[in-house]
Amino acid sequence: MRVTICDVGPRDGLQNEPDVLPPAARAELCNRLAAAAVPRVEAVSFVRGDLVPQMEGAEEVVAALHRDRRQRVPTVYAGLVLNEPGYDRLAATGLEEVHLTLGATETFNLRNANQSVEESIAACGRIIERAHADGRRATVTISVAFGCPFEGSVDPGRVLAIADRLDAADEVVLADTIGVAVPRQVRALVAETARLGRPTGAHLHDTRGTAPASALAALEAGATVLDASVGGLGGCPFAPRSTGNVATEDLVYLLHGEGVETGIDLDALIGVARWTEGVLGRELPGRVYRA
Amino acid sequence: MRVTICDVGPRDGLQNEPDVLPPAARAELCNRLAAAAVPRVEAVSFVRGDLVPQMEGAEEVVAALHRDRRQRVPTVYAGLVLNEPGYDRLAATGLEEVHLTLGATETFNLRNANQSVEESIAACGRIIERAHADGRRATVTISVAFGCPFEGSVDPGRVLAIADRLDAADEVVLADTIGVAVPRQVRALVAETARLGRPTGAHLHDTRGTAPASALAALEAGATVLDASVGGLGGCPFAPRSTGNVATEDLVYLLHGEGVETGIDLDALIGVARWTEGVLGRELPGRVYRA
Repeated sequence: MRVTICDVGPRDGLQNEPDVLPPAARAELCNRLAAAAVPRVEAVSFVRGDLVPQMEGAEEVVAALHRDRRQRVPTVYAGLVLNEPGYDRLAATGLEEVHLTLGATETFNLRNANQSVEESIAACGRIIERAHADGRRATVTISVAFGCPFEGSVDPGRVLAIADRLDAADEVVLADTIGVAVPRQVRALVAETARLGRPTGAHLHDTRGTAPASALAALEAGATVLDASVGGLGGCPFAPRSTGNVATEDLVYLLHGEGVETGIDLDALIGVARWTEGVLGRELPGRVYRA
Repeated sequence: MRVTICDVGPRDGLQNEPDVLPPAARAELCNRLAAAAVPRVEAVSFVRGDLVPQMEGAEEVVAALHRDRRQRVPTVYAGLVLNEPGYDRLAATGLEEVHLTLGATETFNLRNANQSVEESIAACGRIIERAHADGRRATVTISVAFGCPFEGSVDPGRVLAIADRLDAADEVVLADTIGVAVPRQVRALVAETARLGRPTGAHLHDTRGTAPASALAALEAGATVLDASVGGLGGCPFAPRSTGNVATEDLVYLLHGEGVETGIDLDALIGVARWTEGVLGRELPGRVYRA
């Protein structure tokens, strides 16, 4: 069995850290992940730097990304865009893959995207159309797919209906944004989403320690992509209720132990976690790199 | 599906904490776990207090344990004993269950018990015989069953041979003392051990984030007992390489989500984790209680 790991540490991770790293440091993180043979890295978010200072200077990050032609499977770099102006910026950088996101609930989506779910579906469709016209792959992540901080539990049927509407997407990723999901929920929703016929992924936050088990369940159910962030970045120590993605190196340790191939050099990845700890000057939530 | 959770926090947890709690506080921890309907609690270790100050005054702890007759299933309290003088002390307290342990490797066992594995098997046999004569249940935990800090990987055949020799034990628990195991190893060894015909358990440290997934694998393979420690006690922050058992409340959150019954009141258990955090004055590794 094989799975594509997408490290979202440089984006979802650093965006939720209290420290703001300059573009050069963020690019170095991406380059180190690529050197550890991580197959996909969500490197940047094309948001306004005055609104999200952690993500300022996406263009500078992209310009400093290494393209190592010696890699057997070159790392794919992706950028998150929230709207068409964001896509314009991504397109200008030449980045090869676009990541989009919308929330599964109206309340979450309104707070995060200031529009209805229906409007977000339409907006995703327009951007995907442009991406495809430009020869670019587009992944859509459905946030709060297993539970919402505002609306509580989320009806899987609702998530599935949204996934079904995103028929132009090249891949749909189900995100447990608040880390409440247990394996049987993940297994069921991934299986049903995969049955729609598009590559399906899972994006799990390890708020309650369930993410590694849920990741295995996602794989068993047919997921072909798993998001993770090196060191478990994003688990801000100053906001006890906010926690990061499952740590990439913890997930890879588990997957390799279970006989699942990732193509990643685990020792090198642990080195990236240690380097990141040094840059941020504090212990990260990841467990394997500390063991 | 149903499983018996044994909270080893008052013993394995506190023994590995830098702070020494007085017997009254340790008894209160046990009593709070019982009030949360935890079915089994490893309350004490009958070791010498001058050697292990964290475990000093086991008799005082046992004397202060509540026996709540209103509980539908009364909590069983157990004590760890390392030798016959330890069993004498346990027997004098009237504690109902004895826990024994030996290492799967010669090096680990020599360092921990100062005798060969063969000698430990014989010693366990003598204590089990006395326990049974006294009408007491006896559980034996095989430490470093999945990996040893001194000898590296451990041959499952070796562990199975030891388990087979412990034929008088009422239960055999396989311990991943250093937290290296992945689910497929746990699934295989639990299944083979259970096939010997005795109730089989798993004792998992969450050093690499694999313990919750491995616990589910253990259950699937027929384990009837899972050890855990409230708050993930034992993950000493001053010794980065030492980590605690899987947090009981994290495990129970996962198990209940998966439809596995434990009989435990999760909200009350989360309250015990918070109380323990307050007593120790620091954040514990458990995730659910902080979420």
